[in-house]
Amino acid sequence: MTEKLNVVPFVSVDHMMKLVLAVGVERFLTELSAYVEEDFLRWEQFDKTPRIASHSHDGVIELMPTSDGHLYGFKYVNGHPKNTRDGRQTVTAFGVLADVGNGYPMLLTEMTILTALRTAATSAVAAKYLAPKGADTMAIIGNGAQSEFQALAFKALLGVNKLRLYDIDASASQKCQANLAGMGFDIVISDNAQDAVEGAQIITTVTADKQLATILTDNMVGTGVHINAVGGDCPGKTELHRDILLRSDIFVEFPPQTRIEGEIQQLPADHPVIELWQVMAGKAQGRSSSAQVTLFDSVGFAIEDFSALRYVRDKLIDTGLFEELDLLADPDEPRDLFGMLLRAAKASAI
Amino acid sequence: MTEKLNVVPFVSVDHMMKLVLAVGVERFLTELSAYVEEDFLRWEQFDKTPRIASHSHDGVIELMPTSDGHLYGFKYVNGHPKNTRDGRQTVTAFGVLADVGNGYPMLLTEMTILTALRTAATSAVAAKYLAPKGADTMAIIGNGAQSEFQALAFKALLGVNKLRLYDIDASASQKCQANLAGMGFDIVISDNAQDAVEGAQIITTVTADKQLATILTDNMVGTGVHINAVGGDCPGKTELHRDILLRSDIFVEFPPQTRIEGEIQQLPADHPVIELWQVMAGKAQGRSSSAQVTLFDSVGFAIEDFSALRYVRDKLIDTGLFEELDLLADPDEPRDLFGMLLRAAKASAI
Repeated sequence: MTEKLNVVPFVSVDHMMKLVLAVGVERFLTELSAYVEEDFLRWEQFDKTPRIASHSHDGVIELMPTSDGHLYGFKYVNGHPKNTRDGRQTVTAFGVLADVGNGYPMLLTEMTILTALRTAATSAVAAKYLAPKGADTMAIIGNGAQSEFQALAFKALLGVNKLRLYDIDASASQKCQANLAGMGFDIVISDNAQDAVEGAQIITTVTADKQLATILTDNMVGTGVHINAVGGDCPGKTELHRDILLRSDIFVEFPPQTRIEGEIQQLPADHPVIELWQVMAGKAQGRSSSAQVTLFDSVGFAIEDFSALRYVRDKLIDTGLFEELDLLADPDEPRDLFGMLLRAAKASAI
Repeated sequence: MTEKLNVVPFVSVDHMMKLVLAVGVERFLTELSAYVEEDFLRWEQFDKTPRIASHSHDGVIELMPTSDGHLYGFKYVNGHPKNTRDGRQTVTAFGVLADVGNGYPMLLTEMTILTALRTAATSAVAAKYLAPKGADTMAIIGNGAQSEFQALAFKALLGVNKLRLYDIDASASQKCQANLAGMGFDIVISDNAQDAVEGAQIITTVTADKQLATILTDNMVGTGVHINAVGGDCPGKTELHRDILLRSDIFVEFPPQTRIEGEIQQLPADHPVIELWQVMAGKAQGRSSSAQVTLFDSVGFAIEDFSALRYVRDKLIDTGLFEELDLLADPDEPRDLFGMLLRAAKASAI
């Protein structure tokens, strides 16, 4: 993209929005899903580690690195549920893609918007393998920042066009409905979660409280349903009643991380789970019957961010939607970092 | 610094050079040393973890996070010894300081130059506690990118004004001498390491080869010397002969990391070492006799980067040497990330 060694392409929030709009939200989600799927299919090539979390009273700051041996990516992301009280986002993020061969960063990008997109894309990829055939109705419990992205990803990848929304704050559901107006959905707002799940073959839970909550109780989940559990994603934060887990087949991203952060933190450490990548690679079975309850216990894994960074990097070449950031010191002679400083002094004295 | 929630102050390489020059290199090193010392004195308050390394054939990419409960900092840094062959830096770095309370980044800065400064500052702080009283002569073995910074830090903090330089590449020594001309040093270039250490009370080793090397052999190290071993800083990379370690008192930053990366990777895992912060806090003895050989087995720890990030952040307020980076999505209504996208589409259509 550039020959200047000091320069790293930077995608600001403004450029990310322009990129998403230029590509189109649904096409962006579809193309991004293909990158996610490609990387899940070569899962064993990646360096994998549970994210490195720094917990505090009000939230968590995490670093999520991974590498396929050629590229290295990491994301910085925070989770602070109380942030909305003073007008801040609960989750903000940015990330970097780098060249493993020389260690130089190749891309710095906002990832608040990109994380919403990759989370939705990953949910839809999982549902492609796990949801009942012909599913066209999804309940979304929790209608915050992630809800519209989930809806559009499921429409783009699975053809879901009926939504049943519920949020403890009715204005969130109204916001979600208004944002999705004219995008081809038939939308019903429900008064409670029980109503919302009625007739839905897919149930997406995506609430934001940092606590052990019970968004779904056992009696609300009928046979044959696919549950896309997105909101429970850190220690002490779950959304589903334990009994639901006990009668579901549970699919996860990276078990060592999900055991700590996912819905399965409620279960013994040896409770059987199936790795999603193995289903995609044909090494494990996904949905095997129409009566089976499948649960994607999603917590978000570094490889999904890696896929998103790769996708954005590839998209930049055509669109030019980036700035050049003077991030790397680049002395004429690599061992002469101090000399670069001296020459800067001389230049500014002229 | 700013009330705009989406904006993060960014210090480019150019701004970092201007900042260092505006403050003055020696004053910068002195003030930065005070921040390092302040943070070492409250060592127990920090979340500490060995850096998270991703090793490859040609080098390593590392993330170095830490937090004191109020601020969170991390550095991205690579180490690729072969990079100089195609005009790149062996080490490049950038870092972020964030607010633990809301998880929002408060500063993004280049750290290639800043790492050179913080490494030198930390070396000089250690020597303040460990070097023989009145030391004015330092040998520097390895005259690459870090050498001038080491020299100036030891001048600023300890009054070292005689340098004895050696590098396997004589042009590196000449570059170092030329860069330090007129800065108050008496400089001798030596033909070999043996000559260089002659009469030096402090020996700094700062070579870059990624291998087990023997820059110093046992017979070259006289009684009473302080060794500042900076170059050995990753698994399989050391600079000192094992026998030197066996007759030195060894001081380290964070033992779990130094055992993996430092000179002491040559020794059994239970070989006694002393934590530098304990010496500074008066909980452990530093230099106890004039005959003692002291060794600071420096590998670089996240808290030093944290100190550097704090210092730069504090300096920005007066100097204004930063740009504003549109890094964080900031919808009017925090739960309405998708609506922000819709409004951007509407705005661009007008």
